[in-house]
Amino acid sequence: MTDTTLSPTTTPVTSVTAYAALAAKAPLERTTVPRRPVGEHDVLIEIKYAGICHSDIHQARDEWGPGTYPMVPGHEIAGVVTQVGSGVTKHTVGDRVGVGCFVDSCRECEQCEAGLEQFCQNGTATYNDHGRDGEPTYGGYSTHVVVDEGYALRIPEGIALDEAAPLLCAGITLYSPLAYWQAGPGKKVAIVGMGGLGHMGVKIAHAMGAEVTVLSQSLRKQDDGLRLGADHFYATSDPQTFEELAGTFDLIVSTVSAPLDFAAYLGLLKPRGVLANVGAPAEPIELALFSLILGNKTLAGSQIGGIAETQEMLDFCASHGIGAEIETIRGEQINEAYERVLASDVRYRFVIDTATL
Amino acid sequence: MTDTTLSPTTTPVTSVTAYAALAAKAPLERTTVPRRPVGEHDVLIEIKYAGICHSDIHQARDEWGPGTYPMVPGHEIAGVVTQVGSGVTKHTVGDRVGVGCFVDSCRECEQCEAGLEQFCQNGTATYNDHGRDGEPTYGGYSTHVVVDEGYALRIPEGIALDEAAPLLCAGITLYSPLAYWQAGPGKKVAIVGMGGLGHMGVKIAHAMGAEVTVLSQSLRKQDDGLRLGADHFYATSDPQTFEELAGTFDLIVSTVSAPLDFAAYLGLLKPRGVLANVGAPAEPIELALFSLILGNKTLAGSQIGGIAETQEMLDFCASHGIGAEIETIRGEQINEAYERVLASDVRYRFVIDTATL
Repeated sequence: MTDTTLSPTTTPVTSVTAYAALAAKAPLERTTVPRRPVGEHDVLIEIKYAGICHSDIHQARDEWGPGTYPMVPGHEIAGVVTQVGSGVTKHTVGDRVGVGCFVDSCRECEQCEAGLEQFCQNGTATYNDHGRDGEPTYGGYSTHVVVDEGYALRIPEGIALDEAAPLLCAGITLYSPLAYWQAGPGKKVAIVGMGGLGHMGVKIAHAMGAEVTVLSQSLRKQDDGLRLGADHFYATSDPQTFEELAGTFDLIVSTVSAPLDFAAYLGLLKPRGVLANVGAPAEPIELALFSLILGNKTLAGSQIGGIAETQEMLDFCASHGIGAEIETIRGEQINEAYERVLASDVRYRFVIDTATL
Repeated sequence: MTDTTLSPTTTPVTSVTAYAALAAKAPLERTTVPRRPVGEHDVLIEIKYAGICHSDIHQARDEWGPGTYPMVPGHEIAGVVTQVGSGVTKHTVGDRVGVGCFVDSCRECEQCEAGLEQFCQNGTATYNDHGRDGEPTYGGYSTHVVVDEGYALRIPEGIALDEAAPLLCAGITLYSPLAYWQAGPGKKVAIVGMGGLGHMGVKIAHAMGAEVTVLSQSLRKQDDGLRLGADHFYATSDPQTFEELAGTFDLIVSTVSAPLDFAAYLGLLKPRGVLANVGAPAEPIELALFSLILGNKTLAGSQIGGIAETQEMLDFCASHGIGAEIETIRGEQINEAYERVLASDVRYRFVIDTATL
């Protein structure tokens, strides 16, 4: 036990600085929220950077069902361990770590036992949820967070912490379907949408060895796309794109939240091709089933990844020199950043420098 | 070369008895249609039995776009080879053979070379299409058919020809997704709908070693379902079914053409579960994408199989003693049978005895 390893009883609840929506649809403002004492298996993380995910906005604005307020968003967290509980073995003080979309799970169900904690029915989201102690969880727009050691990921030296933060949601959200549906050498992969999610898809699919095509609304981001690793870049506003690319792809990953003409995109797949969807249109889609039946097409959903796969993704990104393309902002710019995310005016992820909170 | 092996030039076009729709939406009636001369690589098949598939009705009634008339439906064909072309090596006179949904393909494309002829963009359907000679193709409601040897399947001795006929479409339509999505020991598989397609799914999934559940509108066919190999049988008209079975299945194969509440069925899947759809609702479905994203669910389409897989299916069925459950009819009962198919009043597949044409 080192000086920095304290027993639970010696660490009181701490009040930490954070940006929170104090009520549904309210702008975020500076406040303080409590963090629990560092328990036997907990680590205290000094947050350095927190990414802004589109889903932060949905939740802060109460668009995904009743939220818990005050709400501190943020599930793309990168920081440094500053204190560990007496039973902690996975991390030590000074470790560079990340926290993603969940901070706990039941640890007993079939999914948890398989390392697929993202599917646990009794998991705890990083914010806008309640932990097993019954207390609300608060996310990464904050100076510190206390989490169980098992839910903190190691961030390898190869990635700067600011560029690492968005990997904890955007990175794993793209890595998981690309890995599961076997993007790699000899495979033609399209990424639909080149925003916070899509640009990670381009980098990761390219690093996996696939031939990567970006399908973006316009050619506005073409230079960026090619620079990040795309082999081809097409505008989906051009109907010619859908003729030219018919039957081309083994795998398409759509990151778009706006309603898509799914039948048109399914038409771009080879037989037995897969359209994996990680975007989340609010409205139900319409789909003619013949567009799946003819050619044995697959429409698949995908949500983040488990702890093991998230670690695998971080290690993969580090070994390929992959981080997010970021624009770093100060705490007081969060509300403005939200508006810019909604206007697709970010290349490609906002990251809050928590030293400015 | 045997007596029955004739060179192409010695065999004229033959006129054969058939049942045809002479115009869109007209009832089927007895007529004659031409069959091409037996070419170098052709076999002449004396058709013994032809199954009635729901898609025969859609096409005869011009519901799937403009049909070619006269139209002789029938792509579930079982018979015996009575003549072979001089270059035929795969079959000999007396062989028990079947013909399914297609009688030719381009033989040159990536899909044909991979043995996935069902995906060939230039294939020839068994009826309601035109062959490479430019002539209309006529299906199995007929006494004879001439096809290229490569598109005739061997029917093993283990299956009676009448029970074999429906395997050529209904059998392979269920076998293919069950095999592709790995139904087998330790897997929980549900079959939605217990009609001509579904009852084959029950038999095949059971023979593959899966734990099989039938999801049928009512419990009316429960005894049959259990007899054919189902372990469980539930009525989908009972909302309790969807509560009780939530998160249960690795694989669901839906054979239903009526509009389904796909979100409800996706809710019955385990994480990473697959809902394979072989039914073909005429109207587009509505689907909330969150029902795919949460739990990484997959909605897949599937259409028949290639020649190699169809042969594999026939061999599998023979080795497990699997044929279709049939009701044999005479030629003049075809129109009545169509009405009964539409009323779901058949257990489970009508087969025309072509000796009665």
